[in-house]
Amino acid sequence: MAKRGEIKGENDLYVIKIGGNVIDNSENLYRFLKDFTALPGKKILVHGGGKVATQLSETLGIEPKLVEGRRITDIETLRVVTMVYGGLINKNMVAQLQRFGTNAIGLTGADGDFIRAKKRPVKTIDYGFVGDLDENSINPKNVSSLMEAGFTPVFCALTHDGEGQLLNTNADTIASALAVALAKDYHTTLIYCFEKKGVLKNIDDENSLINEINPRQYQELKEQQVIHSGMLPKLDNAFNAIACGVKEVIIGHAGDLGNLITELPFGTHLNSDL
Amino acid sequence: MAKRGEIKGENDLYVIKIGGNVIDNSENLYRFLKDFTALPGKKILVHGGGKVATQLSETLGIEPKLVEGRRITDIETLRVVTMVYGGLINKNMVAQLQRFGTNAIGLTGADGDFIRAKKRPVKTIDYGFVGDLDENSINPKNVSSLMEAGFTPVFCALTHDGEGQLLNTNADTIASALAVALAKDYHTTLIYCFEKKGVLKNIDDENSLINEINPRQYQELKEQQVIHSGMLPKLDNAFNAIACGVKEVIIGHAGDLGNLITELPFGTHLNSDL
Repeated sequence: MAKRGEIKGENDLYVIKIGGNVIDNSENLYRFLKDFTALPGKKILVHGGGKVATQLSETLGIEPKLVEGRRITDIETLRVVTMVYGGLINKNMVAQLQRFGTNAIGLTGADGDFIRAKKRPVKTIDYGFVGDLDENSINPKNVSSLMEAGFTPVFCALTHDGEGQLLNTNADTIASALAVALAKDYHTTLIYCFEKKGVLKNIDDENSLINEINPRQYQELKEQQVIHSGMLPKLDNAFNAIACGVKEVIIGHAGDLGNLITELPFGTHLNSDL
Repeated sequence: MAKRGEIKGENDLYVIKIGGNVIDNSENLYRFLKDFTALPGKKILVHGGGKVATQLSETLGIEPKLVEGRRITDIETLRVVTMVYGGLINKNMVAQLQRFGTNAIGLTGADGDFIRAKKRPVKTIDYGFVGDLDENSINPKNVSSLMEAGFTPVFCALTHDGEGQLLNTNADTIASALAVALAKDYHTTLIYCFEKKGVLKNIDDENSLINEINPRQYQELKEQQVIHSGMLPKLDNAFNAIACGVKEVIIGHAGDLGNLITELPFGTHLNSDL
């Protein structure tokens, strides 16, 4: 494995998460995958689901199972997400990345024993086949081996329990856990791509982008109630990753990823600089 | 990469293909995957589809499209096989292999650019999204890199064209092409697991197993019409692989794979020894 700082940039790693808003629009997706390919250094892509899984479930007559407003992954739903996330979305994305020149390999957490999760314990709600991560979930040695062998991992939102069971796992959490686990060996930047320009002062005004937030400023923004409730878990998660060694977290629009190469502004940068 | 003969067994490679008859029965599949795990040396698993793809197509109301008795892979069918082969079957098989201790990675030919195919040209029949392999289809360097990094590849019957298009490709052909392409770097054994004990003198008598066939004996058996028509393409393909450097081809029952370890008789051994 390359040692830190041997050659500038050689040890950089981007962990980038995209959501359904990119996946559901093939034009946006192709543009994103081209920009992803152009990024230098080592890269890991993590993708969530899209509308396709919901559509397939509906076609197959699988009723969405909700308990106290929470979505449950029953065995039928797990089959659907295994087919759609692990097969249809992941493998088509890999084929596109290959076309653009990224030597991608499409993965679940079961592949290479990369990500082990624990089936969420049943308390008041039985979430079904949902897996939660802990600090030992990622196998950084195996992920590094794959990258050092020249491949670019593309993870979907599935993990396993090590006992043969696949589990549905939140893609944001997978991205953050990967970034943290690899931060010991790489200069890691975690990027969340979503449908907004980044963290906005006014959610209805795309021009109100906050360029940078450090932990102190985050506290202030929370106290001023500038950051609205939906962003809080994302930002808490991001600052936790930074506290655990991730160099920087960027939250931005998938369509702007190319700005990282052209050095134009891209999203909100979260970092530990005071 | 390990050099030939450095340590006995270190450079052995098994390429093993299983078909729907193993995949469709979970008990048979688990037994097979346990036996596969117990095999020493490097290994590649190649699997075909099973009844699940047909069942899903029926549920989704996709009519099987046949032209002159040949099955066509239209875009809807390609979606189904990408979900079922690349997702459901492949990833569950990987999760089971991990449980048994094989560090498996589930793949299509698009992953790692391992297998490029050409869309079958339209002559009298348009087969749709079917890919044919040629002598340059396999990227042995990339496959070796993955194996030398400690992973066991598990391929489903999908390839890509390098231009972003996934293609449905015969699993027997994929197994044979992989074995041939890797025979330069490994002592390669190609194993076809199917529902019979091996090549039988009398197809209705499982006790009539032919233990070994070399090319001369194959000619004789063909002349005597002992080998029936359905076996001919499989055996022609096998002897072609041997002519191209594969050490041995074994055709046997998936349930007997464990005999390779206990050194009990297993299937029909095809080799070039005269």
